[in-house]
Amino acid sequence: MTVPVSILWNEDQLTILNQQKLPHVIEYIHLDNIEAAFDAIVSLKVRGAPAIGITAAYGLAIGASQSSADNLEDFQQELHDQYIYLAGSRPTAVNLFWALERLMEKAETVKTVEEAKAILLSEAIAIHKEDEEHCRKIGEYALAVLGDYRNVMTICNAGSIATAKYGTALAPFHLGAEIGKEFHVYACETRPIFQGSRLTVWELQQSGVEVTLITDGMAAHTIQAKGVQAIITGADRIAANGDSANKIGTLGLAILAKAFKIPFFIAAPSSTFDLNFAEGTQIPIEERDEKEITHIGESRIAPQGTLVYNPAFDVTPNEYITGIITEKGIIYPDYQKNIHNTLGDQIGEEVSR
Amino acid sequence: MTVPVSILWNEDQLTILNQQKLPHVIEYIHLDNIEAAFDAIVSLKVRGAPAIGITAAYGLAIGASQSSADNLEDFQQELHDQYIYLAGSRPTAVNLFWALERLMEKAETVKTVEEAKAILLSEAIAIHKEDEEHCRKIGEYALAVLGDYRNVMTICNAGSIATAKYGTALAPFHLGAEIGKEFHVYACETRPIFQGSRLTVWELQQSGVEVTLITDGMAAHTIQAKGVQAIITGADRIAANGDSANKIGTLGLAILAKAFKIPFFIAAPSSTFDLNFAEGTQIPIEERDEKEITHIGESRIAPQGTLVYNPAFDVTPNEYITGIITEKGIIYPDYQKNIHNTLGDQIGEEVSR
Repeated sequence: MTVPVSILWNEDQLTILNQQKLPHVIEYIHLDNIEAAFDAIVSLKVRGAPAIGITAAYGLAIGASQSSADNLEDFQQELHDQYIYLAGSRPTAVNLFWALERLMEKAETVKTVEEAKAILLSEAIAIHKEDEEHCRKIGEYALAVLGDYRNVMTICNAGSIATAKYGTALAPFHLGAEIGKEFHVYACETRPIFQGSRLTVWELQQSGVEVTLITDGMAAHTIQAKGVQAIITGADRIAANGDSANKIGTLGLAILAKAFKIPFFIAAPSSTFDLNFAEGTQIPIEERDEKEITHIGESRIAPQGTLVYNPAFDVTPNEYITGIITEKGIIYPDYQKNIHNTLGDQIGEEVSR
Repeated sequence: MTVPVSILWNEDQLTILNQQKLPHVIEYIHLDNIEAAFDAIVSLKVRGAPAIGITAAYGLAIGASQSSADNLEDFQQELHDQYIYLAGSRPTAVNLFWALERLMEKAETVKTVEEAKAILLSEAIAIHKEDEEHCRKIGEYALAVLGDYRNVMTICNAGSIATAKYGTALAPFHLGAEIGKEFHVYACETRPIFQGSRLTVWELQQSGVEVTLITDGMAAHTIQAKGVQAIITGADRIAANGDSANKIGTLGLAILAKAFKIPFFIAAPSSTFDLNFAEGTQIPIEERDEKEITHIGESRIAPQGTLVYNPAFDVTPNEYITGIITEKGIIYPDYQKNIHNTLGDQIGEEVSR
């Protein structure tokens, strides 16, 4: 029983878990060049914002290491082309740009091609290690805040395989398994893409965490019938006032938590805060293909001509959030003030970028 | 554009809509003998408590009409065997027993075989007509209570095809279409069996009602984003204090309605009240096969060894219910008192049965 990881850097080789084949086939594949990294992102073999960022960073470092440029100017030009290429693999992924830009900034500081190759790889490794460290800290804070609770509900997969290790919302369960603290997790299947059934159940099984699968509509009854004591989810973007965008279905869970008088936590690294948004109502909600709802795979369920509304995310207002668990600590209301206090310097960076 | 019906009695012939094939194939089949009626119930070609009761009543009347018994004693013995046979088609369906018993009581009052055959058929027709009349009245009350609301959410299929005609929760939309009142219905897909996608969307399309399909987890965001003004659902069983058991997911919707300050209505005939239950916590919740959640059709989604919780129903406490719409009128809180006042004589019958 061990926490599954989706990205490995070992003896100069990048290996990733092919998440497309989960949970039925556990396949790890080597990404030996920049094209393989690009393909892994495009074809969703790697998913989860942090995991995509880490893979892209290694992809750029690998691409640079294979450069045959013999002077720095040619190398820098080639690197810029590689950066543009990788950035196009998932144009809406904030973490991907952030990771690639970290590497590009480092490359500006060097004097030789060899130095550039070394610094790009060490920065990719640093991003990878930092994310694992952030997730571990989030898990530790979450473990503390969950205290003696045993029955906890979650949605989607804010998991180890979406990050360097441990995940965010799932981190306390993995860390709990390592130290002998037993949770019973209720995983919402997470329609329409079934991240709960396909990924969260599998991932927690690997760590030996007891996990029960329910449909999203069963959440209210399950909280009551099974004595669920807390709900914890990830976040895709958090506004300056604490309003949190996350997988569709999260808002409903937060409202249930309030109705049943149990705490509702968001677990996310501080990089998830987007202080350009004063509040959650400003966060745009992506709508996805209607086929995700009218079909299962290639089989049509709903009749021809069905109208569909398929928002990918919803926004939970801060009033429903008991606390936001970050690697810098747990942020409680008043969020406006306490997000500022906790993130400190980061605020200047965000607003100015 | 016309309200779809699932049961037709025409020139001494029973015809039903094969609901198993919806929404892709619209197939009506004749049930020419008692075995065909039994099979239609067992194989789920007919579904919905009222529709099952009506089909069973016709099945018994058809079986009796084909009896070759030449004396009343032999006929009654044969009828009793047919009653036992049909009652075994769906042992947990309350409406099925209720309908069959209504016919059996009528058969006790006759003096000849011919008289018995005639009275059994006329009682089946009466049950059929009464259900349509009850649903129409529920629809009219619901139309009144929904007033100028346009955007209304529902779950499962408390529809025309589950009853004689019009349905319960869907009755106002069908009646609205007939009189030119336009609704926009938001139908929750209703995992795990997809009654929303497969049945409700199709049924409302037939009447020309505008209907948008969402997954169950999208309800909260949709209420907000689309300005949903009310929620209306059916009920499987209502306790003496108004607590209502219905398809899993209903409780969550009721809690959302309260959070978003929109009304939540139950629509159900008075026969749905089970006054043997003082409150909803006493109503048993059936758990169904885990394969409904781990698989879609024959394809496995969740990993091997997945633990599943699959309750078929949940119970909405009366505090979340704005009103219960019956054929006898709309019942508002205080439910304990007003259910008694509205149902009147029925209470004596229920408690003594």
